[in-house]
Amino acid sequence: MSQSYRVAILGATGAVGTELLSLLEECRFPLADLKLLASPRSAGQTLMFQGESLTVEAVGDRAFDNIDIVLASAGGSTSKAWADRIVAAGAVMIDNSSAFRMHPTVPLVVPEVNPGAAAEHSGIIANPNCTTILMNVAVYPLHRVQPVQRIIAATYQSASGAGARAMEEVRLQSQAILDGKAPVPEVLPYPLAFNLFPHNSPMTETGYCEEEMKMVNETRKIFSEPSLRISATCVRVPVLRAHSEAINLEFAAPFSPDQAREILSQAPGVKLVEDWQANYFPMPMDATGRDEVLVGRIRQDISHPNGLELWICGDQIRKGAALNAVQIAELLIEKDWLRPAERAIATPQS
Amino acid sequence: MSQSYRVAILGATGAVGTELLSLLEECRFPLADLKLLASPRSAGQTLMFQGESLTVEAVGDRAFDNIDIVLASAGGSTSKAWADRIVAAGAVMIDNSSAFRMHPTVPLVVPEVNPGAAAEHSGIIANPNCTTILMNVAVYPLHRVQPVQRIIAATYQSASGAGARAMEEVRLQSQAILDGKAPVPEVLPYPLAFNLFPHNSPMTETGYCEEEMKMVNETRKIFSEPSLRISATCVRVPVLRAHSEAINLEFAAPFSPDQAREILSQAPGVKLVEDWQANYFPMPMDATGRDEVLVGRIRQDISHPNGLELWICGDQIRKGAALNAVQIAELLIEKDWLRPAERAIATPQS
Repeated sequence: MSQSYRVAILGATGAVGTELLSLLEECRFPLADLKLLASPRSAGQTLMFQGESLTVEAVGDRAFDNIDIVLASAGGSTSKAWADRIVAAGAVMIDNSSAFRMHPTVPLVVPEVNPGAAAEHSGIIANPNCTTILMNVAVYPLHRVQPVQRIIAATYQSASGAGARAMEEVRLQSQAILDGKAPVPEVLPYPLAFNLFPHNSPMTETGYCEEEMKMVNETRKIFSEPSLRISATCVRVPVLRAHSEAINLEFAAPFSPDQAREILSQAPGVKLVEDWQANYFPMPMDATGRDEVLVGRIRQDISHPNGLELWICGDQIRKGAALNAVQIAELLIEKDWLRPAERAIATPQS
Repeated sequence: MSQSYRVAILGATGAVGTELLSLLEECRFPLADLKLLASPRSAGQTLMFQGESLTVEAVGDRAFDNIDIVLASAGGSTSKAWADRIVAAGAVMIDNSSAFRMHPTVPLVVPEVNPGAAAEHSGIIANPNCTTILMNVAVYPLHRVQPVQRIIAATYQSASGAGARAMEEVRLQSQAILDGKAPVPEVLPYPLAFNLFPHNSPMTETGYCEEEMKMVNETRKIFSEPSLRISATCVRVPVLRAHSEAINLEFAAPFSPDQAREILSQAPGVKLVEDWQANYFPMPMDATGRDEVLVGRIRQDISHPNGLELWICGDQIRKGAALNAVQIAELLIEKDWLRPAERAIATPQS
């Protein structure tokens, strides 16, 4: 008999939290017990799981006792607030927030790319940012064959990246505009319906916003390429839940599109979507609800002999967040890496 | 007394045609007479101009007699079909279609960039593609100071690029989705509401679609830089009428963002929109209905010492089409270039 595990979802009522719930249901995760945790404000709500109604509990001091795995998706401050307690309780926290991603002792893992890094955890494993995960799944199979020298990405990010309330806001704003009324921004700083704007994460001193620097720094860490040259422009678009990215890759020598196509057609987590005759390539409506990152429009960059252009779409909530976290949990179980690596367990101070 | 001119709009009932009409009204164009032409299907419609109701006439053999300037916005096949007749009638055709843009004897003009090229016309002047115009207005002022070596662009193109019916389609599809119904694509190949897809223009053998190759080839012609290295990824997004572009520029030496900002703040047709504190940059909702190309997020490309990143938005129907055409007409009048250059008048065979 295979073992089963006690799992808690911290932030169970959010967009990623509810997706975690349905993924655990779908993927026949070996659950002994499932605990739903959220802020006191959301406690008492009920969510359906495998035909049963589960009540969301308020997170508290004893919430993580007897838990093996915590899937955290309640934002950075919540993750930071509870990390010590989770690790002290002997659980592993797989954290969707950005709180610990760049900490040197916290593995940052995309299972298709750097599964081995997960073995080195000290109680916390970070799930990368959505745009990073999607790009890494598509680019790494090529990078393995011939190291990429430079990446220039432009993103087309859906409302789901700002949470369930932002998705609802886009719907409400769209209806308002169709009715001839003014759209009201509340969650996002500007109207997103029939509009778009550069990603509203805080600006860094480089002129890149934090979302863009996540793509740069997280990719470097995941690829173990600390000086990989990356530039990104992140943009929110009025799509509900899948992100798209135009990715320009530069290699040290030519990389034929046919070879790239061959590699990506067999790459884990990738689905090649290219019908050149029908002009049919990855679209958010097709990526929504799917596990794979859709990749297509693989072209020789006509502006550089060693360049390749890719176009990708992926479900931001699924592979961009919840699915990647569940895959990390499955990896820990499969490899028997749930117990922290043999060294002092210490919560990083971020 | 300054002279006035007899103008015909060919394709008066389309998205660009109606914008031409309102521009001629706004800009106090020295009109002696205005004739509205369209296909027999649209003939008989009336459009308001300066408080008067004008009836749209069916284009025909004598339609261009006694006309000085034809503003053509009825598509490539209509432009090709009537070009001979227009030139033979002694009028200048300013053509919004792609029919003659790359013909060696037809000037392709963005007045802020290469006004002098207009002097060389033989009866036809081509208006560039919308994405090209917007990019060229923003990039050329920098290129003049230090030649750009390579451009990598990703576009976010509104429905208006596919015409008034596509704009209506996005509205209808959005309402359908909000009502829980399936969106029906008719004008565009796939649903655009809450979705996006690579530009659906015909694919070329390079793997770039025609829209992308327009950005490449037209920019080379307008800049008189036949081997300028350019790559583009063109994408349709669910915005109604302004296009956005993420533009990565590579120079032969560093180009400081502050110098670029200084240059662009004084560049013709450009409005600098940057509030770094408020994270406020160009957006389609702000570009809609405006003449200027909004430029912002000017950043040092952290992946290349000689790189700059720009983010631009511009009204696709206005500066991307109708306004640029009216500006060409004004240029011809101002410089007294209405009569063709002193050589044989010959309609190019495209």
